[in-house]
Amino acid sequence: MDQSSGRALRPTRKVMPEEARRHNRALVLQTLYTTTGLSRADLARETGLTRVTVSDLIAELIVDGLVVEAGLSKRAGPGKPATALEFDANAFQIIGIDLSGHSLLRGALMTLDGRVVSRLDVPLRGRTGEDAMALVDEIVDELRLAATQPLLGVGIGSPGIVDLAGVVLTAPNLGWTDRPLEAEVARRSGLPVVVANDANVAALAEHSFGGASSDMMLLKIGRGVGAGLVVAGTAVYGGAFAAGEIGHVVVGDDGSECVCGKSGCLETRLAAPRLDAALAGASSPAEHDAILREAGRWVGIALAPIVGALNLSEVVLSGPVQLLDGPLVESLIDTLRARTMAQFHGSVKVRMTSLGDDIVLRGAAAMVLSRELGVS
Amino acid sequence: MDQSSGRALRPTRKVMPEEARRHNRALVLQTLYTTTGLSRADLARETGLTRVTVSDLIAELIVDGLVVEAGLSKRAGPGKPATALEFDANAFQIIGIDLSGHSLLRGALMTLDGRVVSRLDVPLRGRTGEDAMALVDEIVDELRLAATQPLLGVGIGSPGIVDLAGVVLTAPNLGWTDRPLEAEVARRSGLPVVVANDANVAALAEHSFGGASSDMMLLKIGRGVGAGLVVAGTAVYGGAFAAGEIGHVVVGDDGSECVCGKSGCLETRLAAPRLDAALAGASSPAEHDAILREAGRWVGIALAPIVGALNLSEVVLSGPVQLLDGPLVESLIDTLRARTMAQFHGSVKVRMTSLGDDIVLRGAAAMVLSRELGVS
Ligand SMILES: [Zn+2]
Ligand SMILES: [Zn+2]
Repeated sequence: MDQSSGRALRPTRKVMPEEARRHNRALVLQTLYTTTGLSRADLARETGLTRVTVSDLIAELIVDGLVVEAGLSKRAGPGKPATALEFDANAFQIIGIDLSGHSLLRGALMTLDGRVVSRLDVPLRGRTGEDAMALVDEIVDELRLAATQPLLGVGIGSPGIVDLAGVVLTAPNLGWTDRPLEAEVARRSGLPVVVANDANVAALAEHSFGGASSDMMLLKIGRGVGAGLVVAGTAVYGGAFAAGEIGHVVVGDDGSECVCGKSGCLETRLAAPRLDAALAGASSPAEHDAILREAGRWVGIALAPIVGALNLSEVVLSGPVQLLDGPLVESLIDTLRARTMAQFHGSVKVRMTSLGDDIVLRGAAAMVLSRELGVS
Repeated sequence: MDQSSGRALRPTRKVMPEEARRHNRALVLQTLYTTTGLSRADLARETGLTRVTVSDLIAELIVDGLVVEAGLSKRAGPGKPATALEFDANAFQIIGIDLSGHSLLRGALMTLDGRVVSRLDVPLRGRTGEDAMALVDEIVDELRLAATQPLLGVGIGSPGIVDLAGVVLTAPNLGWTDRPLEAEVARRSGLPVVVANDANVAALAEHSFGGASSDMMLLKIGRGVGAGLVVAGTAVYGGAFAAGEIGHVVVGDDGSECVCGKSGCLETRLAAPRLDAALAGASSPAEHDAILREAGRWVGIALAPIVGALNLSEVVLSGPVQLLDGPLVESLIDTLRARTMAQFHGSVKVRMTSLGDDIVLRGAAAMVLSRELGVS
């Protein structure tokens, strides 16, 4: 009954050739994206596809501009040298938009590997609803004019709860409820569009470009606190698309009141404005450090059960470096160590993101690349 | 650049026919497993496969005994009535073994839908290492003799940390370290074998047979405390295969000392022996309830960040009903509600498992069914 054991195969008449072809095309492209300079023979070996299939697909990818021939392959081997192939990250451009800032909406035109070609930041000035929507359209239109290559699509990281169809179910800061952002931008621009929650997008960026492991949490700290989770290499969305919404999880019984009506939420100690306000009242460097360490302890208390339950390998912080990188992250590490089991979780890596303020923009590009080309 | 848009397809010469055929066979079987009484035409419609492919696969599945013809299809439609097909859950039997008990190792012979045909419980009597291994072999041998149908395989739920190859990396209770349990039982029995952590197996059982949602945690409480997680319908294993090991996550700073050397671990309030000992000292029903409520509160404190981060839809408890089902689960619900955001997590369902003490055995059957037939 073992399905892998040999059974004489009758020729199958029609085995979903379209789906298989798309799958194989993405497989070839992914292989070249990961390892540059392979020959057609290398690709056949690495993908398990036939030489004929690989040559067909490469011919198509060269026509599309996604693959270029780049001299002779440097790989050692018998026979005459073969042509080296490369993924061309400049073949198309991607528009990325970060709606998570509280004063600026940020846009960027990027290459396929997330390098920023040009930028457009638009001040929000408290605009919400249709007015905020008009700013998004403005960013798309302006960056489109700046494009020097065909556009692959538009990726958008939005605050709030976003479903898998790119509908923003709720984003209080932008005054949006059940807004079909993905469909609206797609209709008006005619481009492929993908929208997701900003912290999830940031987690994807870390996973794609930041070298993060396959089981990680990205903790995004700004005006609020949100998290993006990657489990076994896959983004977590949650039963109601609200995964990562841990800002209003109660951490301490001694906590101060929160905007949500509860007391002791993680945000009351960790959100940037609350931290800034607390630090403004510090009368000495020691007190300053103590405030940051206490915030780090709160994060550790909240994260210990999550690290334990998911056996995370890595926790990455994104947000104001001057607040996070120092006593806060040190205290977080100490607290996680004290509250989880060394045998399983002693090796969990805690660090700042290396992607800086562009993390959501980079993640937006990664989403488009993944959705449109199957490459990640 | 949209991959789904039309491109003239040249005929592909060899599109992984074996893999596609296995995929299609599992798809057909899964469809019949979920909906009984479909005709070949129904299956073609539901799977998107051609009639010819469906007929080929059904012929093969009938020879294998997994599908039977069962009179005429009751589905309304034009034309003459077609033959109804059924998945035959009695075609093969599965051996399930639960190694998580501290006094008994439990085995069962089951049908493909997890109905227990016969049982064998073997007292552990403190045996460890090779002696414990001999008991596992004994269970396999005895249940094999009891089988009245060909065996599909053996599923085992083991305590401790188990990797994806079924190696028990550490199971202190059984004195096992780096024990290749799956490979050993497979070699000695000649049967397909699949081994996983007991709480993960229990979570799979709830997901497959207990009607649990696709984003759920199974909390298994016995001598220790462990959890199994299902995220977006997929079991979570963790970066080092230790997902769900939350028994030694610190919950309270006021907690008592734990066997692990720390203080305030979840297990110090929740493990069955600790709860029993605390309850034995209760001098009134009110005190009895207060102890159970306090244990439930601890679970709620530990679970709130996990429910928040993963946006879980459901938390299912497995363990001694007289301890868990009552003040403890009520207090857990109250605590979760108080410590998460109603908007996102107010609807999280908390309940006892409906699978009782057979939960690991049922999950073991589900693992074999999934691994061998692609059905879940
Ligand atoms: Zn709050
Ligand atoms: Zn402990």
